[in-house]
Amino acid sequence: MAKLIPGWLAHYPKDKLGADVVAGLIVTILVIPQSLAYALLAGLPPQLGLYVSIFPVIAYALFGSSMVQAVGPVAITAIMTYSVLSPIAPPGSSLYIMLAAVLSLLSGLMLLACGALRLGFLSQLLSRPVISGFISGSAVLIIISQLKYLTGVVPHGSSSGELLLDLLIKLPLAHLPTLAIGLFAFGILAFVRLALAGWLVRAGLGKMRADFIVRLMPLVVVITGTLAVIEFDLDRGQGVAVVGSVVAGLPGFTFFVPELDTVHRLLLPAFVMMLIGMVQSITMAQALAIKRRERIDPNAELVGLGAANVVAGFYGGMPVGGGLSRSAINVAAGAQTPLASVLSALAMIGVVAGAAQWFERLPLAVLAASIMMAAISMIDVRAFLLAWSYDRADALALLCTAGGVLLFGLEAGIGMGIVLSMATLLFRTSVPHIAVVGRVPGTEHFRNVARYEVETLPGVLFVRIDERLFFGNLGAVEQRLNQELERVADAHDLVLVMSGVNLLDTTAVEVFGELNQDLAERGIKLHLAEVKGPVQDRLMRSLLWSTLTGEVYLSANAAYEKLAPPEVWCPEI
Amino acid sequence: MAKLIPGWLAHYPKDKLGADVVAGLIVTILVIPQSLAYALLAGLPPQLGLYVSIFPVIAYALFGSSMVQAVGPVAITAIMTYSVLSPIAPPGSSLYIMLAAVLSLLSGLMLLACGALRLGFLSQLLSRPVISGFISGSAVLIIISQLKYLTGVVPHGSSSGELLLDLLIKLPLAHLPTLAIGLFAFGILAFVRLALAGWLVRAGLGKMRADFIVRLMPLVVVITGTLAVIEFDLDRGQGVAVVGSVVAGLPGFTFFVPELDTVHRLLLPAFVMMLIGMVQSITMAQALAIKRRERIDPNAELVGLGAANVVAGFYGGMPVGGGLSRSAINVAAGAQTPLASVLSALAMIGVVAGAAQWFERLPLAVLAASIMMAAISMIDVRAFLLAWSYDRADALALLCTAGGVLLFGLEAGIGMGIVLSMATLLFRTSVPHIAVVGRVPGTEHFRNVARYEVETLPGVLFVRIDERLFFGNLGAVEQRLNQELERVADAHDLVLVMSGVNLLDTTAVEVFGELNQDLAERGIKLHLAEVKGPVQDRLMRSLLWSTLTGEVYLSANAAYEKLAPPEVWCPEI
Repeated sequence: MAKLIPGWLAHYPKDKLGADVVAGLIVTILVIPQSLAYALLAGLPPQLGLYVSIFPVIAYALFGSSMVQAVGPVAITAIMTYSVLSPIAPPGSSLYIMLAAVLSLLSGLMLLACGALRLGFLSQLLSRPVISGFISGSAVLIIISQLKYLTGVVPHGSSSGELLLDLLIKLPLAHLPTLAIGLFAFGILAFVRLALAGWLVRAGLGKMRADFIVRLMPLVVVITGTLAVIEFDLDRGQGVAVVGSVVAGLPGFTFFVPELDTVHRLLLPAFVMMLIGMVQSITMAQALAIKRRERIDPNAELVGLGAANVVAGFYGGMPVGGGLSRSAINVAAGAQTPLASVLSALAMIGVVAGAAQWFERLPLAVLAASIMMAAISMIDVRAFLLAWSYDRADALALLCTAGGVLLFGLEAGIGMGIVLSMATLLFRTSVPHIAVVGRVPGTEHFRNVARYEVETLPGVLFVRIDERLFFGNLGAVEQRLNQELERVADAHDLVLVMSGVNLLDTTAVEVFGELNQDLAERGIKLHLAEVKGPVQDRLMRSLLWSTLTGEVYLSANAAYEKLAPPEVWCPEI
Repeated sequence: MAKLIPGWLAHYPKDKLGADVVAGLIVTILVIPQSLAYALLAGLPPQLGLYVSIFPVIAYALFGSSMVQAVGPVAITAIMTYSVLSPIAPPGSSLYIMLAAVLSLLSGLMLLACGALRLGFLSQLLSRPVISGFISGSAVLIIISQLKYLTGVVPHGSSSGELLLDLLIKLPLAHLPTLAIGLFAFGILAFVRLALAGWLVRAGLGKMRADFIVRLMPLVVVITGTLAVIEFDLDRGQGVAVVGSVVAGLPGFTFFVPELDTVHRLLLPAFVMMLIGMVQSITMAQALAIKRRERIDPNAELVGLGAANVVAGFYGGMPVGGGLSRSAINVAAGAQTPLASVLSALAMIGVVAGAAQWFERLPLAVLAASIMMAAISMIDVRAFLLAWSYDRADALALLCTAGGVLLFGLEAGIGMGIVLSMATLLFRTSVPHIAVVGRVPGTEHFRNVARYEVETLPGVLFVRIDERLFFGNLGAVEQRLNQELERVADAHDLVLVMSGVNLLDTTAVEVFGELNQDLAERGIKLHLAEVKGPVQDRLMRSLLWSTLTGEVYLSANAAYEKLAPPEVWCPEI
């Protein structure tokens, strides 16, 4: 890191200070409910959500490149944490908390490595339909995971379907006061989301202000819920579950070196988390930057997000990501530079140090309701319908990813999604353009025999390949070459014109090596012509090059001249 | 299946009958040791390897398309069966045997479905370096898994490294008679593989005959081992582990309907098994067919392999595949058509019905030695060295796949391999060719402004995109378009010349929709020109089409004429 002080700070525009200060303070208060809620979703003590809203946020502000993206606890990383760790340790236990910190640290280190190695392009591994399917599937998982807090009933089962079924059976046993509070909170939040904003705008309020009031409502619901618990003593008297004792005051940094066995176990989940975090953060930062006519550097984003997660590993111990709703709050509150995030983080220190115990009697059902509301808005049916009308293969990839997440879990789901994205891509690139060519009489140009009147040589086949050769299209290339060879009577030479081939991968060079031997057994020599410089440099290190039965010609015409039967000169007079 | 009688049988060339009969009988005897050994490797009772060498083999002969490929128990599917099922049930238990049958049935049904849907191209998901890494990694897993039979010591551990370490610690406790038999068998097999064939050829034997003798040796070792056990009473007297009681006589078909929960659990492993089986069988069948100047139909191969596995599910209950060494034995024995396999299957009925109890005192250490010898020959260091010298990215993909298999297991390893194959592919296709174009004066042709003297319009940018647009290259396209727009003073129109674009996937149409809106906010209209017919048909169903701020022109020239400022006519005289 050459730049110790980030650009936005070194050249801070003083006229933006006011806006950033106001935005920072507003954001601090507005993100409290979601920070608590996502920690709960991750199976961690709620206050950890507040902790990771401090130093990780500052780390991102210093290393990231987006002006307004806000990092913190987000729904997707939270549900991933839960689904990875809950089979290994009881949620909320000290082992579980330690594992979450290791997970955060590992995915942070991987993000840093990817940023340093400029591997940001890896985020393009996933097509949009697959991302959309993954998020929608995760949202359903999130909703199912929160039903236990809303109903006070703990379902058992190994898959989401079983959990849901068990919950339905046990529904008559639901804890009524908890259910009442949860449904009430859910109802208010649903009303706010569906109707209030529209009403406010129609009542004459500006779009900005209406949006702000809507975003304020979760906090209002949380406060109302807590006050109701205190007023009617719902927790001690009625047994409504609440956040419970919160460690007062500011925790220190925890330093630890994870055990090798733990690292081994969490390496793959951390990789998946990194991939998803990468895609989500870069996509969102880019969308925000375009709206604001700014630029982001994908690799700097990775470094920023990586630094935030490494810091989160030692302070708070919960994986963080670039949050859609956090960033939206940040933008709506008027943030101009990352200073707003830094100020919000500093203000959060005050909240944690002074006011954490205020959340002790906050009912979990209210947090669950707000998580479920957020999750519902993540389900994107429209994306499916659009994909369906545009491209069935992409729509199926979306459905399969969502289904995979629900049936086999998050990691397998995203794995299926990647495979499906690629499978459609491969299917579409699996048949490259290939033309049998001949010489245009009187020139040195070679053209498609199907379209032009051209000269050919008896027993010699000239084939031009117009695409890079890689594992996905070799089957079609081999098949086509054999078909064309069968059409030539007594073929004895095959010339591949490689002018359009930018790459032969390792599989291609092996397959052509085999083709070379196979043709040799059939008495056909294989020649190459017009091989591009970089391709040739590499080919010279291959077995194909050293065993090639024919020649390598600079041009198709050179091959033509050489392979033409010796001309019998007939004097015309 | 329109053809109830396969082509090779309907038009059976009578002159090949003799060769097929001889080959069938030889194959029956030669595959006995490996059939027993791979069943042991799969954690199943050895005789199941013989059972699945009967009816599944006939099913493949009837439905497959290869003339000489032989299916049966193979090393890769055996180790996959073991690694999938051993965490769920104790190997050899009746639950385990049932699960193996379900796994075989499921992967068979998936193969049938892929064959029927003509999805053979899916086997191109894997590049050769990744396949090579997967096989080498699996081979190491196989070797480690067999050490317990060779030493008589059962190691504990969750990863292959732990198992190996534990085994080293416990080595002083090894059962010496078992170790002696195992090492002796291993030594003989190693000597045969490394030296004998060469000696025989140098001694004047033909290559064919030498190869045949080498392939006979495992049987000799198995017989010698069994005779040694009987002679010195090593099993009862010394405690050397042997195959043990074999159910005498021919078992019947077992019909069962697997439980939903079992299916759910095995769906993903069965998918991975199908994918690997597909790749292995198609690749091998193709290689054999090319050598013999025959053709195979990849989708018929899938149907054949699927039918074999479905039958195996009900008869023997062990997944089968196209085996390299089985097929080599078949070819070496002189098989001409699948009739050889059918006859070998019928002869196997005789072996199972009459001679199965001969294997009761066969020592497991000898089988383990023959498995380890086969596994060693699967480790392909040369493929790595070749890839390393040719293309580092492919060599790394190979190494990571092998490492992934060893560290995280077979499924995760192959997943990593697929992701890596794709990542290299995406990286190489992530920057498409894009040219800023202008009109060649006096013509309707548009050419690259960097190479030709062309006319341009003020504030209008003509950009030609030369590749299909998909999720993997959109980042680069967007960035390039924005760069080019910045170079144009007061840009107000952007014309995308789509003559080279064969496809816009769902992600592309979304990204261009966003670009369209983004440009609109900047006061720039987006136009399309020369959109290909099929691309346009699809685009008309998209949001981009209905919200496009500019026009769609038939040709770049039409756009040029329309966007040119109205000409002020200056009379020149």
